[in-house]
Amino acid sequence: MRRASPAIKALVFDVFGTVVDWRGSIIREGKRLGREKKLAVNWEEFADAWRAGYRPAMARVRSGELPWTRIDDLHRMILDDLLRKFDIHGLSKDEIGDLNRVWHRLRPWPDARRGLQRLKKRYVIGTLSNGNVELLVNLAKNGGLPWDVVFSAESFHHYKPDPETYLGAANLLGCAPDEVMLVAAHKDDLFAARACGLRTAFVRRALEYGPAKRADFKSESAFDFNVGDFIQLAERMCGRGGAR
Amino acid sequence: MRRASPAIKALVFDVFGTVVDWRGSIIREGKRLGREKKLAVNWEEFADAWRAGYRPAMARVRSGELPWTRIDDLHRMILDDLLRKFDIHGLSKDEIGDLNRVWHRLRPWPDARRGLQRLKKRYVIGTLSNGNVELLVNLAKNGGLPWDVVFSAESFHHYKPDPETYLGAANLLGCAPDEVMLVAAHKDDLFAARACGLRTAFVRRALEYGPAKRADFKSESAFDFNVGDFIQLAERMCGRGGAR
Repeated sequence: MRRASPAIKALVFDVFGTVVDWRGSIIREGKRLGREKKLAVNWEEFADAWRAGYRPAMARVRSGELPWTRIDDLHRMILDDLLRKFDIHGLSKDEIGDLNRVWHRLRPWPDARRGLQRLKKRYVIGTLSNGNVELLVNLAKNGGLPWDVVFSAESFHHYKPDPETYLGAANLLGCAPDEVMLVAAHKDDLFAARACGLRTAFVRRALEYGPAKRADFKSESAFDFNVGDFIQLAERMCGRGGAR
Repeated sequence: MRRASPAIKALVFDVFGTVVDWRGSIIREGKRLGREKKLAVNWEEFADAWRAGYRPAMARVRSGELPWTRIDDLHRMILDDLLRKFDIHGLSKDEIGDLNRVWHRLRPWPDARRGLQRLKKRYVIGTLSNGNVELLVNLAKNGGLPWDVVFSAESFHHYKPDPETYLGAANLLGCAPDEVMLVAAHKDDLFAARACGLRTAFVRRALEYGPAKRADFKSESAFDFNVGDFIQLAERMCGRGGAR
């Protein structure tokens, strides 16, 4: 029942939430900092608020209100606000800078590294993230993520879901759009990639927003794959000598 | 006697000649094709002529005579000329396309992979090559080169030795220029990087142009390192628990 499609040559991955657990990582580092500095902060709320500021901050760049600004600097703008809102005092400039770089130290989901290693044997694998290049390289170094190539919004001076990002990655890989598949935990990202002609794989990251929050994890027939994690994706794409 | 310098954080590598043996690889594949197709071609001369066409072709892009053109397409323009000059007939369009992609299959020098693996433990390692992204990714896949990041002239729409390449890579890494070191077998590349403030390591690739040709392999005090191969560079930079 599948339409005839060319073989997939490359997989590009959304990173925040799809490959790495931003919420758990920020909470863990926040709690450690809180103990050291005797800060009474609800770090779950803090992590959620930081992430919630990300989309509006990017929207200001996408609309042209702000010139190109890398995520590190957007994260810092949001953080400076949060330090006031959460009444956090007594951090030195270096400590604030280090806290901002928690985004360079986010931990991969438990299946991520192993799944990527398997997928890498058959496909070119790369990031396609709104994170800046330095951040993505540090995430990979810290988490042992074996990317063949790092694509960032920074390379295109466009943030996802602008088409320049999806089409830019395919172009640099020398691929037609439908030879490249976006792997992501977020449907809006996948639908935008699909509108550009890319293939799509939805990964259910049930804990991305914490155990309490219910997001939309329903499979979509519009996507080429709907999977629970990267191991399952590797089994579907590489298992038994190359099923599909 | 060293001037005070910040620590080196990242190494970026020239690729053609520095990491991979373009001449030996082209000769080997050419001879195989020649046997199959019964072509009487001096493949040593053919390889040298192909490479000799590269710099003038890039110069046409750097001067603005040609719009941005990726190396794959420059290689193909040169190849089309060479097929006439070397009187090579009887290749199909696919065979010519495949011959052009020999540049995606160039073999690493024997020390390259192991040296990079050692350097990667301490530094961010990446390409900084005039090769296009797809070509560099394929070289790495085929040769097992463990890059953290792939920087290409294509990312900057400038060919080396334009300063935009060296400074662009440092900027994307979030580094000051003198926190980044170019590793290359070609002094002009290194001097151009040095003029932008980068650190420099010269690698003597005595066989790059074949056993007959003598190039300039003299050490230069202007460079931070002058070494025989990547293993020696790793020993100098990582040996004994972190000299320098």
